[in-house]
Amino acid sequence: MGKTDWKAAAKALKKKLRKLTDKGADAPTKAKKAKPVSPLAPASFPALPQIKGAEFSAVEAGVRYQNRKDVMLVRLAPGTIMAGAFTRSSTRSACVRDGQAKLLMKVPDGVGAAIIVNSGNSNAFTGKLGDQAVAAVTSAVAKELGIPAARVYSSSTGVIGEPLPYDRITAKVPDLAKALTEAAIEGAAQAIMTTDTFPKGAAATVQGEGGVINIAGIAKGSGMIAPDMATMLVYIFTDAKISQSSLQKMVSRNVDGTFNSITVDSDTSTSDTLLVAATGQSAAAEVKGTTAKAFEAALHGVMRDLALQVVRDGEGATKLLEVRVTGAASDEDAAKVAFAIANSPLVKTAVAGQDPNWGRIVAAIGKSGAAAERDKLTIRFGDILVAKNGWRNPDYKEEDGASYMQQPELVFAVDLGLAKAKRSVWTCDLTARYVAINADYRS
Amino acid sequence: MGKTDWKAAAKALKKKLRKLTDKGADAPTKAKKAKPVSPLAPASFPALPQIKGAEFSAVEAGVRYQNRKDVMLVRLAPGTIMAGAFTRSSTRSACVRDGQAKLLMKVPDGVGAAIIVNSGNSNAFTGKLGDQAVAAVTSAVAKELGIPAARVYSSSTGVIGEPLPYDRITAKVPDLAKALTEAAIEGAAQAIMTTDTFPKGAAATVQGEGGVINIAGIAKGSGMIAPDMATMLVYIFTDAKISQSSLQKMVSRNVDGTFNSITVDSDTSTSDTLLVAATGQSAAAEVKGTTAKAFEAALHGVMRDLALQVVRDGEGATKLLEVRVTGAASDEDAAKVAFAIANSPLVKTAVAGQDPNWGRIVAAIGKSGAAAERDKLTIRFGDILVAKNGWRNPDYKEEDGASYMQQPELVFAVDLGLAKAKRSVWTCDLTARYVAINADYRS
Repeated sequence: MGKTDWKAAAKALKKKLRKLTDKGADAPTKAKKAKPVSPLAPASFPALPQIKGAEFSAVEAGVRYQNRKDVMLVRLAPGTIMAGAFTRSSTRSACVRDGQAKLLMKVPDGVGAAIIVNSGNSNAFTGKLGDQAVAAVTSAVAKELGIPAARVYSSSTGVIGEPLPYDRITAKVPDLAKALTEAAIEGAAQAIMTTDTFPKGAAATVQGEGGVINIAGIAKGSGMIAPDMATMLVYIFTDAKISQSSLQKMVSRNVDGTFNSITVDSDTSTSDTLLVAATGQSAAAEVKGTTAKAFEAALHGVMRDLALQVVRDGEGATKLLEVRVTGAASDEDAAKVAFAIANSPLVKTAVAGQDPNWGRIVAAIGKSGAAAERDKLTIRFGDILVAKNGWRNPDYKEEDGASYMQQPELVFAVDLGLAKAKRSVWTCDLTARYVAINADYRS
Repeated sequence: MGKTDWKAAAKALKKKLRKLTDKGADAPTKAKKAKPVSPLAPASFPALPQIKGAEFSAVEAGVRYQNRKDVMLVRLAPGTIMAGAFTRSSTRSACVRDGQAKLLMKVPDGVGAAIIVNSGNSNAFTGKLGDQAVAAVTSAVAKELGIPAARVYSSSTGVIGEPLPYDRITAKVPDLAKALTEAAIEGAAQAIMTTDTFPKGAAATVQGEGGVINIAGIAKGSGMIAPDMATMLVYIFTDAKISQSSLQKMVSRNVDGTFNSITVDSDTSTSDTLLVAATGQSAAAEVKGTTAKAFEAALHGVMRDLALQVVRDGEGATKLLEVRVTGAASDEDAAKVAFAIANSPLVKTAVAGQDPNWGRIVAAIGKSGAAAERDKLTIRFGDILVAKNGWRNPDYKEEDGASYMQQPELVFAVDLGLAKAKRSVWTCDLTARYVAINADYRS
């Protein structure tokens, strides 16, 4: 058995991959390599409604990237209500810990708020320096905007373990403040990108009592500059009049079915942050009763839309996969099976190869730790019944499965046949490009 | 933003990868493509001691592969003691369930035993047909060798969900029986390979009371023919005189630190099987007291050696990584952290890229769910202190990390600084070749 020089082969391959990466877009500057846009990207950034009381700006601060905007600021009008959700990582970043604490603080009525976000450096695992950086940045914004520092939220996304050069950010705060406008949300969505291949936005409107309520959100996620995590940052704005407790309850209720139901590579970030700000400046009356239901449904829609955009921009993704589990013995079991399938490298590489390889779904169910009985399982590709009664459906034709797998958006539906619990999660395929993106040495 | 044709790019890449795969070895037949041998493979198959009372043979039965041996038989002398461990997958195969049941059966003294294994088809998720296949194969062996079917163990590895063409196996049982010899263990190790790139064997000898005790084992694992799992099969033979309960206890005690401490891609197989057979034909007295300690240590060594060989043959592997966790609050937490790191696609791609990307280790610790405190963590690459006190070690130099990562065998040591629990696990890197191997359509 002759030995191949794999190292050399991998090197050549990487070079090849890098070349592929550089095609398809003009090189914008010599400092930055152009990135191909995900084939699953929406055609364009959506038209988002302006949210009265929410103003945006973005600047080039040179935190890590050159020749692009990398810091964005949001000013939120007096009286804005804040709610949110954060990563549960035990190594979460300084700004995540700071934001969690601020969300729990009692705030005087009628005080404004702000969100400042930088890309290029996550300020995670940076010790006491990290806390100092958060204090410096949020204080600078507080001073400039004349609001308490306790109302200034910050996020950072990018390299882990490098001290954040926060003076580059504080130096730009006056410029950021001057440029604030309700129209600039798309620029903000661009400034928070790391290796995202497209900016992410979503919106909804709800008919309230006496007026329209608008919701507009932006997100970043799943792009990566080595050595970043698949960090996800989401900011949603609404002009709804709503109490903090109602808003927070809605956010908490809907985060599991949206952002907590996506996975690109099973690697949880140290920076994941979702903030929802309600300025209360809609003409509509306070959100209650049936309006509350409609508003929550609309909010869920925006959260889900942004969550799916993160998966669509999953590193190297060419397919969007929904794993739909039903018939589980408990909610916990449904989640275990759904994530075991969605995180299985073997399932994800089969999807990349357009291989209707349902045996790997069986194996993922088996390893999940959830209650499952071979003879009660049903597996479907979309509407195609693939397996039931503990064996392949005798009417299933491999060519039907193969043809189904050609589609860019897939549903793998698993019914465990035990009880009524269910869970859907979304993921993307695992391609050689994912490896190339993440095996590249930081430079 | 122009869109790149990723599908075409991936196709071209796959073609490229396939070409790389085909270099470095002569194409043995037109039906089978040659496989490069893992760069982490041992120089050659080790010289294994013959185990008195254990005879081997292998044949070409054409279960799925052509032009190679794909079924092996072991005959174990009357009085042989059997012990084992099996996958806990809820979708485990028919032969695994059968073996588990047989191991619990009360056996009359002085009866022989046998193991028959085929590659190419795992007989998993094959419903009632699967049970029939196991019964047919084990009965044919029982009849041919004149032993009870309850003493015939079988394993199958390969495609999931396809009916096992067991008549091809039963037809060859007489030939297998005729060819049995104590010297043929290497042929058996070869017959159970799927896409393993080398046969795996390990041995040890122990000085018993009044004679030498030999241990010899073979394994397969981590090779793959789409759509197989990273199935692992292990058979260890010894001439020790030992009681079933002692042997089973030793196996159970040592399986967690060996086979249950390796992971190639976090995808648990439906077929994992470890069987240990003691023929009792050594001249040494029964294994007890200090001999028991020495024997157990030797058995552990063989188990560990075979386990590490499976990782060394991990699909696409170019690096062997030990993740060594100490200072955890509990054994469970130590395992959580060790496997979170070892299964992290971001850690594994960084290893592939020789990137000393310790930020990804921090993130993996954070997501593990285990108790961890930023300021008590210590991270080392081998002996290089990378991070402590919640931040990068000020004396750490990136170039030292980069130089360390060039080695083929790496240790990432994480001390959580909380208590005394520890766990080591072994894994390999995640390369573009892993994706290429597993994204290829079955054909």
